[in-house]
Amino acid sequence: MNIDMDRMKKQICFIEHLDRLKQVIRQNLLMNESRRENSAEHSWHIATMAMVLAEYAPHELDQLRVLKMLLVHDVIEIEAGDTFCYDVEGNKGKEERERLAADQVFGLLPSDLAADFRAIWDEFEQGDTPEARFANALDRFQVLLQNFNTGGGTWRIHNIEKKQVIQRMLPIKTGAPSLWPVVESCLEEACDQGMLKDTVASQE
Amino acid sequence: MNIDMDRMKKQICFIEHLDRLKQVIRQNLLMNESRRENSAEHSWHIATMAMVLAEYAPHELDQLRVLKMLLVHDVIEIEAGDTFCYDVEGNKGKEERERLAADQVFGLLPSDLAADFRAIWDEFEQGDTPEARFANALDRFQVLLQNFNTGGGTWRIHNIEKKQVIQRMLPIKTGAPSLWPVVESCLEEACDQGMLKDTVASQE
Repeated sequence: MNIDMDRMKKQICFIEHLDRLKQVIRQNLLMNESRRENSAEHSWHIATMAMVLAEYAPHELDQLRVLKMLLVHDVIEIEAGDTFCYDVEGNKGKEERERLAADQVFGLLPSDLAADFRAIWDEFEQGDTPEARFANALDRFQVLLQNFNTGGGTWRIHNIEKKQVIQRMLPIKTGAPSLWPVVESCLEEACDQGMLKDTVASQE
Repeated sequence: MNIDMDRMKKQICFIEHLDRLKQVIRQNLLMNESRRENSAEHSWHIATMAMVLAEYAPHELDQLRVLKMLLVHDVIEIEAGDTFCYDVEGNKGKEERERLAADQVFGLLPSDLAADFRAIWDEFEQGDTPEARFANALDRFQVLLQNFNTGGGTWRIHNIEKKQVIQRMLPIKTGAPSLWPVVESCLEEACDQGMLKDTVASQE
């Protein structure tokens, strides 16, 4: 095999750049509440979840595509940072910021690979394929489990209301509908235990 | 679809247990030297590397199998802890310790999934398939890049010699032979720059 050393150098440079995702800190806490989670370990967690929960996809999926999306979906945060989902101000301009970050990060790769990675990221972001919908569902479901296991986690810290969480969790209803009853029962228990504000109930 | 709630509970319990891998700390430093790496983010890094470097597998591989092995290969460390590769004492009994850990960790899953995950882990450990050899090569290659990018990293901290590193890197020669020249040139430069002891040369 003839090795194109320029190409290989770009690939290795990208791999070295990936290391920075381990320093992008999310709002969510680890389940033992010892510290906040970073985007690299989060990506590992949801990719492994996709292996465990594959059977709850609404129909047969391309599992390789799902894993690739979950591994790649946060890489752009190396440039764009993590935006807290309930931060209204921070989410203004997020789309444009992340698109530019994608140009930058994937642009380190040889052009064919850059296009492949960009297509994987775009597919996740657009959420139009069954694979992307299932991947998005798992991305939300992990945060539910984290918050539920840390006495409310970011819901409590940021004074989030149940209706906001339901809105945020909706991709699970379409992407992995069998998991939806778990979402509902977790949110109900979270409200009962005071982890989450049930505004609707308290207004009654 | 009829949901078996006992089954789903076991799967969710396993997913929650996975969170602990983020607290298993390896010897290796992040490339910016800010802290040591954990096994969850390490697993994400090498799985994503498998996407970037797929073309350097010696022949066409089952990429899904490679990704699954890389995602799962360290999960047993939740029970067994990470063993530093150059720690002779720590490596005594490692195999038995890890086998017991595998029984324990994968045993949380419903039995069919437990068998699937165990087979994936066994395949990686045994390293007999081309997929397992490629996965093992990447596991080694990442550490090479980390140490090379941190002024010698664990090689320098633990006073490791070049011949030990070559021995440790050999799976790259069989699993991803196109990457071997990179290994050789990194090790040569590492010795030249005093990141790594070249015992053979110094004895001449």
